[in-house]
Amino acid sequence: MNAPRTATTFPPPVMEARRWLEGANFRPDRPLINVSQAAPVDPPHPDMRAAMADAVLNDESTHLYGPVLGLPDLRLTLARRTSVIYDGAVTDAQVAITSGCNQAFAAAIATLCAEGDEVMLPVPWYFNHKMWLDMGGVTAVPLPCDGAMQPQIDAARAAITDRTRAIALVTPNNPTGQEYPPALMEAFFDLCAEHGIALIVDETYRDFHAETGAPHTLFKRADWDKTLVHLYSFSKAYRLTGHRVGAVITSETRLAEVEKFLDTVAICPAQVGQRAALWGMENLDQWLAGERAEILLRRATIAELFPPFAADGWELMGLGGYFAYLRHPFALSSAELAPKLVRDAGILCLPGTMFHPEGGGGQELRIAFANLDAGGIATLFDRLAHLDLPRRTG
Amino acid sequence: MNAPRTATTFPPPVMEARRWLEGANFRPDRPLINVSQAAPVDPPHPDMRAAMADAVLNDESTHLYGPVLGLPDLRLTLARRTSVIYDGAVTDAQVAITSGCNQAFAAAIATLCAEGDEVMLPVPWYFNHKMWLDMGGVTAVPLPCDGAMQPQIDAARAAITDRTRAIALVTPNNPTGQEYPPALMEAFFDLCAEHGIALIVDETYRDFHAETGAPHTLFKRADWDKTLVHLYSFSKAYRLTGHRVGAVITSETRLAEVEKFLDTVAICPAQVGQRAALWGMENLDQWLAGERAEILLRRATIAELFPPFAADGWELMGLGGYFAYLRHPFALSSAELAPKLVRDAGILCLPGTMFHPEGGGGQELRIAFANLDAGGIATLFDRLAHLDLPRRTG
Repeated sequence: MNAPRTATTFPPPVMEARRWLEGANFRPDRPLINVSQAAPVDPPHPDMRAAMADAVLNDESTHLYGPVLGLPDLRLTLARRTSVIYDGAVTDAQVAITSGCNQAFAAAIATLCAEGDEVMLPVPWYFNHKMWLDMGGVTAVPLPCDGAMQPQIDAARAAITDRTRAIALVTPNNPTGQEYPPALMEAFFDLCAEHGIALIVDETYRDFHAETGAPHTLFKRADWDKTLVHLYSFSKAYRLTGHRVGAVITSETRLAEVEKFLDTVAICPAQVGQRAALWGMENLDQWLAGERAEILLRRATIAELFPPFAADGWELMGLGGYFAYLRHPFALSSAELAPKLVRDAGILCLPGTMFHPEGGGGQELRIAFANLDAGGIATLFDRLAHLDLPRRTG
Repeated sequence: MNAPRTATTFPPPVMEARRWLEGANFRPDRPLINVSQAAPVDPPHPDMRAAMADAVLNDESTHLYGPVLGLPDLRLTLARRTSVIYDGAVTDAQVAITSGCNQAFAAAIATLCAEGDEVMLPVPWYFNHKMWLDMGGVTAVPLPCDGAMQPQIDAARAAITDRTRAIALVTPNNPTGQEYPPALMEAFFDLCAEHGIALIVDETYRDFHAETGAPHTLFKRADWDKTLVHLYSFSKAYRLTGHRVGAVITSETRLAEVEKFLDTVAICPAQVGQRAALWGMENLDQWLAGERAEILLRRATIAELFPPFAADGWELMGLGGYFAYLRHPFALSSAELAPKLVRDAGILCLPGTMFHPEGGGGQELRIAFANLDAGGIATLFDRLAHLDLPRRTG
């Protein structure tokens, strides 16, 4: 008797981290700093909330099933926006709306893989991608990154087998925050196209990219949709995590396959969130630009604060999107350090072990800094500076 | 190269049926009667809509990720309600909230099955169950029903192999509408318990059951949660199809596995729908009783109208929940008849072929009558009575 699908993977890391808070007490003068989950904690723009309330009260279709692949106006608006951002040509028929970006990844994999196939993930990886591959009977092949936390194209080329179905990149990256430059994205696209495999590009944190132009040129490629499976989330940009709205952009042919998966696992995306996402794209460009500026300011604050830590044995391995990815100087594994940080320093963050294959990531910590203003970031680093723990030697 | 998961199954039948409407014109004096999808078309109770608007405007947690397994208050309230309805003992730790009942089924299967395993489904089956099993690499083993459209326990016993992991029953049934009596449910529970396999019971249409007492006694069994995986939907009872809220009730151990699946495919159920479902259970008992009475009235209307049809070669194979399941007297397959009914009679319903393994169901039609009042039902049957088509012979 084979183990059922869920027995092939590990429990959700974010839920495990939440459990470290059970029984923990925080002094009033030193409240918890929660930098564990990559989610805005402030509510959406008040006008967006008013629009959602209006839909609930006055638009009866908000309460009914919609098309499996999403609200037609939302598909069209995202197609147009994507075409503008990337200077490409994306049609509404190439866009599907999903119940969050995790579901977009899950659907994409279901259209690509069978039992025993392989998908390459740069390490450190986003653990939900690893979990879904495990449960689908798909082998996650670790792809090493270089010192700048960029996935190594030569290593990818060498690791392709006749079971490889896709390479999945997340940029700006979760957990490292690193942005992959356009030339690297081009190289990965070419490699995938050459081998007839898919390039999955998860751009959940795209709206907080440091560059002002297009993050890459892949949508300008002829036949881009034969190779590219682009994933997006409305959750971070518009603070809609509780409403579950993401998207997948690829060929119409592949979306007909995506439709089978989404029909059985969701029927349709929740309607309130879809209406909010549409309203956001139609009304909040200026507001979103301000959000981005604020996130970039917080990122700059971390970069400015870091030199004394570097001198003290820490390393800033990656910074961008919502994340700072740190190498800590202590002698214990991050798997022990992270729960200890809750008790000793009032900091909840995720250990690098959660983003690595068994045995890796023990020196790493992921800090999801997006909810901390400059003062909060200073407090966080002050607490880290005062940790009194045995150091690694050698 | 093996076919990817989605290539192992068929396109969503409901979306296929919607496409039959493209290009169709309906005379003003004979508008379309849509009895294809099992979904209330009226909006939720106005007070519930007001409560949803209030949550969107004033409860900031509505916009944030929640726990993977759902809102704690909703889990607790459904546990208590389930305990009362079935006179059993269900705790909140045995309840998880899902993004609709299809997702509850998908999650349950992921905790039970690996590639090559088997799950038994009575025929006609609910096509989304068949689709999910296909995509999971699980063989759907057809279980025959008797003349009263009840699954045959002896056939089930004979069909159990060492790869069987579950039997999945839907009661009141989709597509037949038939309610399975408590004794039959007991027999299936015993059979499953004896073989150490799961009994999945999908009670999406439970709130419209004709019996006033508990639909079965399974929650009263000692160790019920070792065998039973109970699925529920808030969509039909509270008209929340657009908000995606369902539930799975089983052992806490199994829910820890369910959590892995839900985390990767949804992260959490949409928050507006969860709050609406909770508000509904707290405030709408009397209203829901009225809804049930109305559905039962519509069901009775069909039963009353039917005798002349029976005399004319039709058969009412099943009736209950939202459905009437008919055997038609015509010489063509329902796969051809159903699209023809759109053009010739302004009726959109689903052919029995969609609920059967390849080659079956050609004489059957599913009528989802819930949205038709007595007058609408009379009109529907009047149109059926005037179909001028070649009859089956012999």
